[in-house]
Amino acid sequence: MRKVILDLAVTLDGYIEGPNGEIDWCIMDEDMDFEGFLSGIDTIFYGRVSYDAWGNYEPDTNADEAEKALWATVHAKKKVVFSGKAQQDSNVTYITSNIPEKVDEIKQQTGKDIWLYGGSKLITSFIHHGLIDIYRISVHPTVLGEGKPLFQNLKERINLNLTEVKRFRSGVVQLIYEHKL
Amino acid sequence: MRKVILDLAVTLDGYIEGPNGEIDWCIMDEDMDFEGFLSGIDTIFYGRVSYDAWGNYEPDTNADEAEKALWATVHAKKKVVFSGKAQQDSNVTYITSNIPEKVDEIKQQTGKDIWLYGGSKLITSFIHHGLIDIYRISVHPTVLGEGKPLFQNLKERINLNLTEVKRFRSGVVQLIYEHKL
Repeated sequence: MRKVILDLAVTLDGYIEGPNGEIDWCIMDEDMDFEGFLSGIDTIFYGRVSYDAWGNYEPDTNADEAEKALWATVHAKKKVVFSGKAQQDSNVTYITSNIPEKVDEIKQQTGKDIWLYGGSKLITSFIHHGLIDIYRISVHPTVLGEGKPLFQNLKERINLNLTEVKRFRSGVVQLIYEHKL
Repeated sequence: MRKVILDLAVTLDGYIEGPNGEIDWCIMDEDMDFEGFLSGIDTIFYGRVSYDAWGNYEPDTNADEAEKALWATVHAKKKVVFSGKAQQDSNVTYITSNIPEKVDEIKQQTGKDIWLYGGSKLITSFIHHGLIDIYRISVHPTVLGEGKPLFQNLKERINLNLTEVKRFRSGVVQLIYEHKL
């Protein structure tokens, strides 16, 4: 069955953003093999706000070729947007209700894995419904002290199985876990 | 110069305890080489509450020999207790004021490194004063969702240098950082 993968950068104290949305601590390592990750997925799940911000993002015309190629790869994926109501957008499938059932349906379909892109409201909802199969958490060597936590308002503990640890030159450590059944 | 080392277990979401002091998620791996860590230090810094709870702790007479040996090693270290007022205790040096100056003094003395044992009030105070040289953070494969965070009420960001990553059989990953100057 296809897996839903959360791939996210956090600070050492577990924040995905500073109190004013700061993500300037976030490092994109060249040795992170983000292309390799992208090649393993064919679908991206967005919340509405994230989709509006990033779903059709085009890098600056002066951006380097690698960045342009990366965004072209992202935009070639199938996109699913979770939102209170569907919009007119032929590039996208909207899901407006019954999230667990519809996500299960998509996971049963043939295809590669699915990247849960975010934002935090959608991630929290996926965590609550136990819909995340793989957590890829890139722990950054920064302590913010305050901000928006990745995990919030949980109803119960999550127990995970560590499957992989990757250390990058920048000091970022990626911890990969599977949801323990 | 001797270094002050914080060695602590945290959950993946950055808590050192659950909301009711739960530490049942905390794993003591046999491959963690805690004895190796202890052999590199000769002094332990305690807060008063931690010292009262653990400073003279004796394992149960039925405990296994390894545990008894470990506690004997811990109790053979020089102990410094940070407290509002000094008590009568010939085993211990009390520090009741001017923490940064007195810690600096101790760090200038000849000796091995120093283990900052805790608790959280003392740790926060050390973080605020920039007195921690090495963070050894053992990230556990559990998400609690709530609890007592390791880092709180910071005045500013902490930027760290990753120096080592150790993966243990249990799924615990130890991240070792130096304070970036």
